[in-house]
Amino acid sequence: MTERIGFIGLGIMGKPMAKHLLAAGYPLTVRDLFPSPVDELVEAGAARGESAAGVAAVSDVVITMLPDTPDVEAALFGEGGVAEGVTRGSLVIDMSSIAPVPTRRFAERLAAQGATMLDAPVSGGEKGAIEAALSIMVGGPDDAFERALPIFQKMGKNIVHVGPSGAGQVTKACNQLVVASTIEAVAEALVLAAKAGVDPAKVREALLGGFASSRILEVHGQRILDGSFAPGFRVRLHRKDARIIIDTAAELGVPVPGFAPVAEALQRLIDADRGDLDHSALVTLIEDGAGVEARA
Amino acid sequence: MTERIGFIGLGIMGKPMAKHLLAAGYPLTVRDLFPSPVDELVEAGAARGESAAGVAAVSDVVITMLPDTPDVEAALFGEGGVAEGVTRGSLVIDMSSIAPVPTRRFAERLAAQGATMLDAPVSGGEKGAIEAALSIMVGGPDDAFERALPIFQKMGKNIVHVGPSGAGQVTKACNQLVVASTIEAVAEALVLAAKAGVDPAKVREALLGGFASSRILEVHGQRILDGSFAPGFRVRLHRKDARIIIDTAAELGVPVPGFAPVAEALQRLIDADRGDLDHSALVTLIEDGAGVEARA
Repeated sequence: MTERIGFIGLGIMGKPMAKHLLAAGYPLTVRDLFPSPVDELVEAGAARGESAAGVAAVSDVVITMLPDTPDVEAALFGEGGVAEGVTRGSLVIDMSSIAPVPTRRFAERLAAQGATMLDAPVSGGEKGAIEAALSIMVGGPDDAFERALPIFQKMGKNIVHVGPSGAGQVTKACNQLVVASTIEAVAEALVLAAKAGVDPAKVREALLGGFASSRILEVHGQRILDGSFAPGFRVRLHRKDARIIIDTAAELGVPVPGFAPVAEALQRLIDADRGDLDHSALVTLIEDGAGVEARA
Repeated sequence: MTERIGFIGLGIMGKPMAKHLLAAGYPLTVRDLFPSPVDELVEAGAARGESAAGVAAVSDVVITMLPDTPDVEAALFGEGGVAEGVTRGSLVIDMSSIAPVPTRRFAERLAAQGATMLDAPVSGGEKGAIEAALSIMVGGPDDAFERALPIFQKMGKNIVHVGPSGAGQVTKACNQLVVASTIEAVAEALVLAAKAGVDPAKVREALLGGFASSRILEVHGQRILDGSFAPGFRVRLHRKDARIIIDTAAELGVPVPGFAPVAEALQRLIDADRGDLDHSALVTLIEDGAGVEARA
């Protein structure tokens, strides 16, 4: 039996993801607050959902791909939300990147209605979405993961079932913590080299041969050398993820002294009108000398 | 003509490095403040130097491998130091990890006597020294680098001429900045995962597939999962490097807001009697909840 899929949230990421599902032959009902991506999908063969509840009512699987935690909460539990349309056996897959703790509450509320929820945030950006090459980090029950896997495989490549409900969002948060902190470290090192009169390109090369080597040094290190900050992944979005990380760490009592100043730097970039640059623009604050004073 | 080599500083790193040079057939004169490693090298065929000046007087190339900037300054310019023994054409190679700015001054002072200096700090630790597999980051003039290269090749594998005098030490500082900051990021992420009830081993695996991937996540991430903190590279030594980084950044006016709290954390580890653990023990502060409060 081919699952009927509902897709809520046709933004930069959601639209190409939904198109892959349509192209794979899934009966698809779509919804977005803006009419134009909905029209585009409807022309391609999807049905138009009049409300989130309406989408859920005609779908076996409902996927949400929305900007932030409150958006997902509203789509699921607001008036006319998904929760009003699900039935026993419905599968809800939230592929947004949102906070882990609320995610678990959402899953429990849906479970009370007999529906199952997976959290399945992605990385890989617009390019990964268009090329169906996203990394997908999945939290939730085994059987729900098995059920969703063929659907994930239409949108992504590196698909990992990390653990129970919330585990996908936790993994995404960990990923975004490491990525931002590593960009900051590479940026500080390359500016230090340059200000010390040493060619930062040679430093990057030398460092790639040892323990300092990383994908970030490779990719974002090169962007920093080139001064090329076309996104990639926008500062603004990483700042949203940073807030989730900081909040989650605070709730769990985990100190993040290394990450906290990086989260602040992302905010400073937004304040300086650089929110739509690639996150490797963290280096611009260091070049400006606009950071916290060196201390210790 | 085979160069006569003098080797000053036969510690954990220096002793195996000197042995490789002896084994390669270089006439070798050695010196250390402790008699036992000197005796060991003399038994193996080296000559005993009675002072740093004496070592320099009978050598074409003098290598120093010492703990910190003041040790190198004393060995070079103290009473009975290398500077008193060098002649026109002498090559001094400092393979210690010390501060870049004083390194340049040392090179200038030696140049005034007709001697050339290279800075050539290494990474790879005791294991790399024993296996003659060190990474060597070299600063100084081209012709001096060419002259030293056959000697370096007896001790290391990944040998990079990064730039002029001081460039080797700058590169080493950059390396140590990125390594420490990345360990901190990985540690924060894996503790966050564990406290959120997600298997940190699975998170490490998932992250290795994307932009968060690094040699540190691979190697030190595994040490963190195993709780295995036998050095490796000691916290105490990384704290010394951290001071060099912080001082150099301050002198150059480069803000290092991401690295500064990591430098502080290394100091806190020493204060907590963990200075002789591997630097991946940064994770223990996060597990203790002993870090700065999450903020931003």
